[in-house]
Amino acid sequence: MIMNVLVTLNSTYIYPLKVMLKSLFLNNQEDYFDIYIMHSRLKKEEILDIEEFVQKHGSKVIEIKIEEEHFANAPLILNYPKEMYYRLLAFRFLPNLDRILYLDPDILVINSVRELYQLDMDGYLYAAANRNSLSTTTVNKIRLKPYNIECYYNSGVLLMNLELQRKYIIEQEIYDFVKKYQWKLVLPDQDIINALYAKLIKSLDEMVYNYDVRKYKSYKYSSKGACNMDYVINQTVFLHFCGKKKPWKSNYQGYFHALYKHYEKLTFHQTPIVS
Amino acid sequence: MIMNVLVTLNSTYIYPLKVMLKSLFLNNQEDYFDIYIMHSRLKKEEILDIEEFVQKHGSKVIEIKIEEEHFANAPLILNYPKEMYYRLLAFRFLPNLDRILYLDPDILVINSVRELYQLDMDGYLYAAANRNSLSTTTVNKIRLKPYNIECYYNSGVLLMNLELQRKYIIEQEIYDFVKKYQWKLVLPDQDIINALYAKLIKSLDEMVYNYDVRKYKSYKYSSKGACNMDYVINQTVFLHFCGKKKPWKSNYQGYFHALYKHYEKLTFHQTPIVS
Repeated sequence: MIMNVLVTLNSTYIYPLKVMLKSLFLNNQEDYFDIYIMHSRLKKEEILDIEEFVQKHGSKVIEIKIEEEHFANAPLILNYPKEMYYRLLAFRFLPNLDRILYLDPDILVINSVRELYQLDMDGYLYAAANRNSLSTTTVNKIRLKPYNIECYYNSGVLLMNLELQRKYIIEQEIYDFVKKYQWKLVLPDQDIINALYAKLIKSLDEMVYNYDVRKYKSYKYSSKGACNMDYVINQTVFLHFCGKKKPWKSNYQGYFHALYKHYEKLTFHQTPIVS
Repeated sequence: MIMNVLVTLNSTYIYPLKVMLKSLFLNNQEDYFDIYIMHSRLKKEEILDIEEFVQKHGSKVIEIKIEEEHFANAPLILNYPKEMYYRLLAFRFLPNLDRILYLDPDILVINSVRELYQLDMDGYLYAAANRNSLSTTTVNKIRLKPYNIECYYNSGVLLMNLELQRKYIIEQEIYDFVKKYQWKLVLPDQDIINALYAKLIKSLDEMVYNYDVRKYKSYKYSSKGACNMDYVINQTVFLHFCGKKKPWKSNYQGYFHALYKHYEKLTFHQTPIVS
């Protein structure tokens, strides 16, 4: 089947984006993807380079170039570029699509995304993984009061019900929220989704759909050993390299470092793999 | 090109053998392999199963069934089966080959073996990696006295010059050595090769050709950072899962656990990979 994938990025993330896409293609070989790239500052040759890479794997790139006038009314917060709104308002630029899967570029896709993509989204704006640590939820509940935050979703993997979003999400409501809470926002887009739409987010299992690679031991422990390395490699779909240290940079350390470098090699250095 | 690979095993190692072979095939796709399987106790259906697996990847299995009479004169040491002699005396069973690459089954082959296979072996019986830690060498020097052990080679990866071995290695000399030193032998085949033939072993860089996965930090440190994860994934040919804990068993932990499980999945669970 053909699936829609959304990414939003600037030049510094092209390198990991390719690794993410390579892992998506390699582990979903019976499917094809329309890759929507939302950006404002990529150069023509950068887009061409990504296009060529994606086409080589049988999929397609659709560029969505965002111009200054597109977010003319959007309030800006110190240190956060306008890109913070792209994920939230993507539906404006995708009038003909019903659903799309947003993915951060610091992800490895290590199993089939088909089951997630076909999820029943009836009545939900998003599907996302709930980072269900008690401490995070409590902190965010206080931080984003009076919004009733029952749990805190990570927005690195977001399956979007665009049809419902077009009916339900009011742009000005987002801007009003940002103006009012700007000094409290830590990860603005993620905070906005959680504060305004948490009740309309379908909860996904984070160990399958948004596995924080820093938490290998804690996942294994909290699942009583069930979420071991075997489970992760065979069941987890998205390995999310959360945090400041990134596996494509030097001095990274982590349980999935070798695996990341392996996909990086397949992306940039190797001749085609045939079985 | 076609290369000869030797493995010696019993039933319990068929599982990791397949993972090792899968990684060999995947990372050497321009080459073909004749896989020589030396054994005495594998069942007919086990050999057929390996044969089918190897043929599916375009390579070939040659079975060398060892019968009781083949090592009639060989002394036995407590706890060590006669398989300890297979690697040492393989040349007897391979009369038409010039060279062969012996590989332990607890190895992942993550880059091309071609350069190693084409190594100039003139005047050398073996090529092997020198585990150059000072402490190991000193212990072995004392343990295997009066043999002049300058360094201690690991016999998990052994490129064999069969032509020279046929001329040089005297079976009875090995048996005499075993009788004399049996109580001192820890890893008999490896000890024998080191004690009797160390001067005729061509030394290989262990970080490339016999990377002990337990030593990631110490390799990185001793190479002043050069042998980092990037180096390993792109330059190292053989990742050797030395030690009692094995990555295909539960409760394993290590830097290359995820990578091993990845290859394990490709071996047993996945549909063919095409680029």
